[in-house]
Amino acid sequence: MGRREIPVNRVRITDAFWSPRQRLMTDVTIPYMEKILRDEVEGAEKSNAITNFKMASGEVTGEFYGMVFQDSDVYKWLEAAAYSLQLKCDPLLEKRVDEVVDLIGRCQQADGYINTYFTVKEKENRWKNLLECHELYCAGHLIEAAVALHEAAGKDELFKIAIRFANHICEKFMHEDGMPGHQEIEIALMRLYHATKDEKYKRMAVRFLDLRGQDSEWFKRHTPTHPGTHYGGYDIDPNDAAYNQSDVPVRKQTVARGHAVRQMYMLTAMADAAGETGDNEMIAACVKMFENITQKQMYITGAIGSTPIHESFTADYDLPSDRCYGETCASVAMVFFAHNMLSIKPDGKYADLMALELFNAALSGMQLDGKRFFYVNPLTVDMRVSGKAAGYEHALPQRPAWHACACCPPNLARLIASLGKYLFTEDESTLFSHLPIGCEADTKFGKISVESKYPWEGYAKYDFSDKASFTLAVHVPCFAENFTVRINGQKEEFPIENSYAHIQRQWQSGDSAEITFDMPIQRMHANPRVRDAAGKVAVKRGPIVYCVESADHEGDLSALILPENAEIRISENSAFDGMIDLTAEGKAQKIPDQLYSPRLSCAPALIRLIPYFAWGNREKGDMRVWIREH
Amino acid sequence: MGRREIPVNRVRITDAFWSPRQRLMTDVTIPYMEKILRDEVEGAEKSNAITNFKMASGEVTGEFYGMVFQDSDVYKWLEAAAYSLQLKCDPLLEKRVDEVVDLIGRCQQADGYINTYFTVKEKENRWKNLLECHELYCAGHLIEAAVALHEAAGKDELFKIAIRFANHICEKFMHEDGMPGHQEIEIALMRLYHATKDEKYKRMAVRFLDLRGQDSEWFKRHTPTHPGTHYGGYDIDPNDAAYNQSDVPVRKQTVARGHAVRQMYMLTAMADAAGETGDNEMIAACVKMFENITQKQMYITGAIGSTPIHESFTADYDLPSDRCYGETCASVAMVFFAHNMLSIKPDGKYADLMALELFNAALSGMQLDGKRFFYVNPLTVDMRVSGKAAGYEHALPQRPAWHACACCPPNLARLIASLGKYLFTEDESTLFSHLPIGCEADTKFGKISVESKYPWEGYAKYDFSDKASFTLAVHVPCFAENFTVRINGQKEEFPIENSYAHIQRQWQSGDSAEITFDMPIQRMHANPRVRDAAGKVAVKRGPIVYCVESADHEGDLSALILPENAEIRISENSAFDGMIDLTAEGKAQKIPDQLYSPRLSCAPALIRLIPYFAWGNREKGDMRVWIREH
Repeated sequence: MGRREIPVNRVRITDAFWSPRQRLMTDVTIPYMEKILRDEVEGAEKSNAITNFKMASGEVTGEFYGMVFQDSDVYKWLEAAAYSLQLKCDPLLEKRVDEVVDLIGRCQQADGYINTYFTVKEKENRWKNLLECHELYCAGHLIEAAVALHEAAGKDELFKIAIRFANHICEKFMHEDGMPGHQEIEIALMRLYHATKDEKYKRMAVRFLDLRGQDSEWFKRHTPTHPGTHYGGYDIDPNDAAYNQSDVPVRKQTVARGHAVRQMYMLTAMADAAGETGDNEMIAACVKMFENITQKQMYITGAIGSTPIHESFTADYDLPSDRCYGETCASVAMVFFAHNMLSIKPDGKYADLMALELFNAALSGMQLDGKRFFYVNPLTVDMRVSGKAAGYEHALPQRPAWHACACCPPNLARLIASLGKYLFTEDESTLFSHLPIGCEADTKFGKISVESKYPWEGYAKYDFSDKASFTLAVHVPCFAENFTVRINGQKEEFPIENSYAHIQRQWQSGDSAEITFDMPIQRMHANPRVRDAAGKVAVKRGPIVYCVESADHEGDLSALILPENAEIRISENSAFDGMIDLTAEGKAQKIPDQLYSPRLSCAPALIRLIPYFAWGNREKGDMRVWIREH
Repeated sequence: MGRREIPVNRVRITDAFWSPRQRLMTDVTIPYMEKILRDEVEGAEKSNAITNFKMASGEVTGEFYGMVFQDSDVYKWLEAAAYSLQLKCDPLLEKRVDEVVDLIGRCQQADGYINTYFTVKEKENRWKNLLECHELYCAGHLIEAAVALHEAAGKDELFKIAIRFANHICEKFMHEDGMPGHQEIEIALMRLYHATKDEKYKRMAVRFLDLRGQDSEWFKRHTPTHPGTHYGGYDIDPNDAAYNQSDVPVRKQTVARGHAVRQMYMLTAMADAAGETGDNEMIAACVKMFENITQKQMYITGAIGSTPIHESFTADYDLPSDRCYGETCASVAMVFFAHNMLSIKPDGKYADLMALELFNAALSGMQLDGKRFFYVNPLTVDMRVSGKAAGYEHALPQRPAWHACACCPPNLARLIASLGKYLFTEDESTLFSHLPIGCEADTKFGKISVESKYPWEGYAKYDFSDKASFTLAVHVPCFAENFTVRINGQKEEFPIENSYAHIQRQWQSGDSAEITFDMPIQRMHANPRVRDAAGKVAVKRGPIVYCVESADHEGDLSALILPENAEIRISENSAFDGMIDLTAEGKAQKIPDQLYSPRLSCAPALIRLIPYFAWGNREKGDMRVWIREH
């Protein structure tokens, strides 16, 4: 279709909100991650990931340690490091990346295969248990890291290694049946196709997608029995085909089910492949799934995955706020999916979803100082149960130091470090701006810089350095009731199509386009079918979802009432520098001694709302997104 | 203290509400249960319980089958059958009871021990794994059945067997450490003490209670390791001492935790023992636990156990209505506990709790036709998730035919069949009437008959056949705002103490005492700390909690709103014969297409409320106890 993202190396973020967060990645998170992989952090759980590679290369001897997919931690770090090298010159990091890439190369088998678990432990069992063993999953992350190093850092050593491995995978699976137990290779092969233009990788990605669900018992019949202590104790039920979306052909799937990250990785790959092949049935499936997820199975913060049981979707409208999973990785993958949908069709709903995830459910995964991370992003924290009572153990009230299964921090790191590539797509005649984020972009129509006050104010200014005739199509956010465009200071009207204002013009060097939109404080209500949110209100301003924390309130948050007619205002001060808090005159029900009583009384209470992404950055306490409304 | 229940054989229920339910037990449930135990019901899951006994007696050979506590199914049926024999002359049932008792006798070992699992399968391992193996639990149910046959049916064969077994247990455990992994033997030994007046059984019961929690690692150190397939696959974590309340000495426990039925059985025994011994510390612990449970951890229906995970309590105020456990057995045990507390002190709160459980959370366990039973009694059913989605599998929307683990139906059967013993306690000078249920009672003050319109009207009439001077102390229910007493038709005033109206009088044959109390329709609200019920209302009339079902409503129950000012009236007709339904003019929010939207609109909707215990007796559908209130 010819509409594609502007690659990450051509967009530099220069944004008051995001640039400091990118610096946290380059300066704090990515170096810390590497130390973890090398087991250099005292007190942290053992990773052994680098050591596993050293064993596979024959440099050291020992027992493989960790999850069967431990290698992917190294690859995800490499991908994040690739973006980091683009953001900031760092010779020391570059040297260590080179060392790790060399090490990976030394682990590559003669036929191209790489996986430390099977090289160290079970050479004879390669590719025999696709359900549980994550060989294709790890391969996917290797390939993604390689493409990132190639594109963002101009480093091609891993790229060559990845191509050899990808070729081995194509040889192995292009003519025999097989598919990944955890989708990911499909995303990677599509990225490799974009980087190389070699159609074989696209064909292989589509083949993996095509096979999925054709035979709902495929994994059941192709999974060897094994003792439970195998594969780092990793154990998947081969009878539960919905868990990894292998029960129904991908084009026939209409409702999100099973493991949320697997579901979203699959949809990310489907959207990419369908955008390239123009496969209308696959496009329609992607659109249906997008509607199902965003209109029936997504929390108002953008979080998905209603239960920790298999980290999965449950059912339409089942969105309990206190024991949801809402994995950070799943929200990151929602950005991937929406981003790929934008290449199919620049529809504002995809851009709105990217903003929702970036400013809420994905970002809440990270502490403000970049040092701690959530896997699980609940919408209700109640200290009586959260993180400890049966069924709530996963929903921690505070971001923990590090995880043995380290998927979320590097996933968030690679998203934030590569944020540039999510801002624009371009085709022959149009530059689509999906997110009003400050940046300098090298587009096919010349250089453009964007200055933005988003997400705190609805203002962005596009400055054009080159003369060119094209359409700048700027996304009009879903919440904006007024959207104005000023060309060189003069207000002008432009047509709006699918929530994009199309500013067609012969641009001159020095031109500017200023966009302004209102950021109303919105009271949002859930569909009454959402049991947990019925009778409650959530507050948004622009893309930011707000919450209340006990740090700002005396007594129980569940006793707070935000009356229907109470005015919600911007607060004169805020809990965190540079953010905007909201306040309202509310009520608090008095807590009686009895569990049940005919009448409850109320007292006035000032309600302070802070951005949801910033919750859990003060003393440990309760939190609520949904507030009672009377 | 000298205050005790009137034994079951001296009270005959003659009640419009309860007599038909007792007949369901004698005519439907108890015969059906026996067929199950004998594996004579086609299509039902295999029980093998009677066959296990035949194997233990040497009559047949084969493999033990079922849970390690399978024997208790037979004992619980025997206990229910004992009450059935009192209610109805049934020579065939009597013959079959005798046969089963004979069979049990033939299984008794020389030293008195009885347990088919260990006799058939692991003779050498008797009493070696008290945590998991339920030998003391099964012994308890054997003893309870024996006492019931002795008291209700005047049959002493099992009583003799039970005494031999109890003596063996006393010899074994009076001087060496040991306690049950599942409390129950303590209840049974106290009942055996009451039946025999042999102090030894009381001492043994108290010793089991005394040992509990003295050493929180006792089970950890005394549980042999074994493969997971042992004991019918039954597997308990010895590190989780709170699960069976063995982490803290029983007198120091203040908050209900762990497995709800274990907790309630323990409290039942504690209340009985403390009432006998006058142990003030144990009485205080019982009172504290009663307060914790009823004022912080109990659903408004009387259900307890907030999670299916270990069928346990979770934390104060954590009362999710859609995924609660609320086991029928736990509500039955709440009646046991409250009943024993009444012997310590006739306080109306215990009588109120008995009524709450009997008319709501316990009774909802049974289909109106007596043929199907719930284990789990949720307060919210949503067909999108209930009984199927992850985390909701246990909360079935319909009572199933029978369970492999058959604890709840016989527990409910023995409660309903022996209901007579819960109506009165008596001491030297006072007859306490706890529940205004129609009956003929043979009290120490002579014969009394009660005629009642409860629970549908607040009216009961006590007729006295004998001349005697004593106080009739009649419970004034918690909801009654007006309570009047008429002696022989003349209204008189009497002092009310601890919610009992004390009618002291020289009664003559032919005297009557009529009590009348109002049954206001009450809007009840939960403590705001109960997240799930905040902003919602539950409707009660008298002891009956009401609910809405989708059978009476179009659209989604979660969209229904019962406005604060809407009048709730008695309906002119009712969904089930002989019951009272309520109606109100409410509203229903319209279901939008969007998951989240700024505004929702409403339409008028007639709300019909039916008694909670009758839910799930029509077509499968949604149900709600808590209704939104605006």
